[in-house]
Amino acid sequence: MTPVALCAPDKLRGALDAHEAAQAMAEGCRQAGWDAIEHPLADGGEGTCDAIVRGRGGRREMINTRDAIGRPRKATLGVLPDGSCVVEAAEAIGLMHIPRNRRDVMRATSAGIAPLVLAALELGAPRIVVGLGGSATVDGGLGLLIGLGLKAFDSDGNVLRGRGMDLPAVARLELSGLDPRLARTELVVALDVDSPLAGPRGAAPVFGPQKGATPEQVIVLDDALARLEALYGERARRPGAGAAGGLGAACFLLGAKPIPGAELVMQETGFADQLARVELVLTAEGAVDAQSAAGKTVARVAQAAHSAGLPCVIFGGRVDDDAAALYEIGASAVLGISRGVKPIREALRSSGDDLRAAARAVCTLVS
Amino acid sequence: MTPVALCAPDKLRGALDAHEAAQAMAEGCRQAGWDAIEHPLADGGEGTCDAIVRGRGGRREMINTRDAIGRPRKATLGVLPDGSCVVEAAEAIGLMHIPRNRRDVMRATSAGIAPLVLAALELGAPRIVVGLGGSATVDGGLGLLIGLGLKAFDSDGNVLRGRGMDLPAVARLELSGLDPRLARTELVVALDVDSPLAGPRGAAPVFGPQKGATPEQVIVLDDALARLEALYGERARRPGAGAAGGLGAACFLLGAKPIPGAELVMQETGFADQLARVELVLTAEGAVDAQSAAGKTVARVAQAAHSAGLPCVIFGGRVDDDAAALYEIGASAVLGISRGVKPIREALRSSGDDLRAAARAVCTLVS
Repeated sequence: MTPVALCAPDKLRGALDAHEAAQAMAEGCRQAGWDAIEHPLADGGEGTCDAIVRGRGGRREMINTRDAIGRPRKATLGVLPDGSCVVEAAEAIGLMHIPRNRRDVMRATSAGIAPLVLAALELGAPRIVVGLGGSATVDGGLGLLIGLGLKAFDSDGNVLRGRGMDLPAVARLELSGLDPRLARTELVVALDVDSPLAGPRGAAPVFGPQKGATPEQVIVLDDALARLEALYGERARRPGAGAAGGLGAACFLLGAKPIPGAELVMQETGFADQLARVELVLTAEGAVDAQSAAGKTVARVAQAAHSAGLPCVIFGGRVDDDAAALYEIGASAVLGISRGVKPIREALRSSGDDLRAAARAVCTLVS
Repeated sequence: MTPVALCAPDKLRGALDAHEAAQAMAEGCRQAGWDAIEHPLADGGEGTCDAIVRGRGGRREMINTRDAIGRPRKATLGVLPDGSCVVEAAEAIGLMHIPRNRRDVMRATSAGIAPLVLAALELGAPRIVVGLGGSATVDGGLGLLIGLGLKAFDSDGNVLRGRGMDLPAVARLELSGLDPRLARTELVVALDVDSPLAGPRGAAPVFGPQKGATPEQVIVLDDALARLEALYGERARRPGAGAAGGLGAACFLLGAKPIPGAELVMQETGFADQLARVELVLTAEGAVDAQSAAGKTVARVAQAAHSAGLPCVIFGGRVDDDAAALYEIGASAVLGISRGVKPIREALRSSGDDLRAAARAVCTLVS
C-alpha cells in the first residue's frame, strides 16, 4: 500500500504561506511515490483563519474595516460549518499592512477588529475564535473594546478614542455599553505569549519597539497600560494579557478563554484525526530555533506525532544550533531546506523548490 | 545493538577536506546514538593520497619537488603497507598552489610530478597509483615524461623542456631514456574525464581557460597537443588522455591502466568491506548536481550502498535541481546541509556544524 505523509507546516514567513508550504511538501512526497495529505497550520497569528477554514471547511467573508492606522481595509472573517467564526487580529490591524515609515504606536488602534467581531455576532456565531499576534498596536485592546460598545473617559469626563495616544488620559471605563450578545457567545483567544499587560515584560517594552515605538513612547505607554490594567480589573490580569499590544487583556475582559495558538489551530482542524491515516509527519516553519521547541507549531506537531508513534521531520528555512532541543520532545529530524548559498531574496524565492526537494528526500529515505 | 553509519564523504571544496567532513558526520551520528565509521573518500584528484593512506594505513613521505611554475615545494607521497605508492598530481602541480595572478599555462609544466614517481621507484614500489585532476598545466604531460628520462627535440635537434611554451616546437621524442624501472612497475592512473588530448573536447579548450589560458593560447596549445598526440602514438590515444592538461596521455604512454578516480579510492580503501558492518551510508560533497550522478564519488557510494541493500543519504553544500538524478541510481535522500541564508564565507565556515546537524537528523530519523 502506498504510504502517506501528513504535510502540516506553519508559514515560512516572507517566503511561503502555510498552504503553499504544504503543497510544496506534498509534491515532494508524491515525487517519492508517497501519498500526501496537505494540512496547513498556523500559530494563532497570521494564517490562522486560512488554516482553520481550509481544515474545517466553511467560508470566508470579507468585512469592511480599518487597519491599525485607520485606513479602510477589507479583512477576512472565517465562518465555519457549525457557525463558529474565526477572527484573525492581524487581518485587520496587522503590522505587515503598515509600511515601516508609517508605523506609529501612538496613532495605532485595535478598533479595526471590532467590525469582524460584530459581523460574527450578527451571524449569530455561538463561538468566536480570536487569533492574536502580529498586531501593529500597543493600545491595550482599548480600541477593540470601544468598538464593541465600551466607553472610556478622561478625568474631565471627555469621551476618548482607543489609540495609543489616548491611553495616558483614560481615567474611567464604562462597560455597560458593551454589545450584550458578547455575553451569550463563547470567546476563545489564541495566544502564544504569557506576557503581562504592563511592566518590564509587558506589551510596551517587549513588543513596542518592533512596532515603531521610541524609547520615550515605550515608557509613556507602559505607564498608561499599568493604569489601564487597574481599570480592567482582576479578570483581565492573566498571563498573556500583554499579547498583541494588550489585546489579550481586552479579550480576557470579554471573558475569553485562552489557548496556545498552535494548539487551537490543530484542534480546530482535526489534526489528531489525521495522524491515524499516515506513516510520517512533516512540518516546517521559517526559522527553527530554541523558541520553536518552546511550543511553536512545529514543536506541537512533533509532540503529537511522537505520542502517536509516528516519525516527524521538521524543516526550517533557517535552523539554529539550539533547535536540537526539538529532538528532546520527539522530533525525528530537524533539517534546513536550503540547498546552497544564495542571496536572501533568491533563497526566499526558492523555498518552495527547496521544501519539495527536502520532502522528497525524507520520504525516499523513510520508504 | 547500536546501529552503525558509514560516513564516507568526498571533500567539500573550500570548506572541509574529506577527513574533516567524515569527522563532522560521525559526530552527528554519535549525537543520534549511533556508532560511526569515518571513511573519507576522494575522486582521484585532491585528497586522493590522504584518503587512501588513511584508509589503508601506511605512511606519507615528503618529497622535494617544484610546483607547476617551478617554485620549490614539498609534496606528499603515499606509501602503502604493501609498498605501493600513491602519487597525487595536484600535490605537486595543483592549480590551488598558484595564485590566480600567476597562473600561466605557457610556463606551467607537469615536471614536478616526476620526483614523486622517481621516489616511488626508488622505494621499489611494485605499483604506483597516480591521481590526476586539479593540475595547473596544459603540457600534455611532457614535463613529467622528460622528468622520467624522455627527451624532446625541436626540428633543429635542440633539447626542449616540458613547459606549455615548449610544446609547439616539439618535433621528435626519444623514449629510450625513460627510467627502466617504469617498465617493471604496475601503473594505475585515476581519472574522471574521458576527454581526448586534442580537439574541441581536448585539454586546451575545455580546461585551459580555468588554468588561465587566453583564447589565443588555447588555440596554440590545442594545435601543439594534436601534434604531440601523433608523436605519442596509438598507445596514448585513449579516452582520458586529455585529463589534467594531457597528463592522462603521458600516463598512457607509460603503460598506465586507467580507472575512475572515485572507484580507485573506494577499492584501495576497502570501501566494499565496510558496507557489511553498517546499517546506513552517508556521503557528501561540496556541490551535488547532474555531474555527481554521472559518476562522482557520491554517486558511486550511493550505487554501492544500493547494491548492498543499504540506505544512502547524500549531503551537499549545494544541491542543484538536477541532482534528483541521483535517486535513479539508488540514493535514498539528497539533502542540502545549509541551515539558513548566510554569506558564502560564513556558510563555508559553518559546513562542519551543518554536516554534523544533518547527519544527526538523518540518523535520528532512520533509527
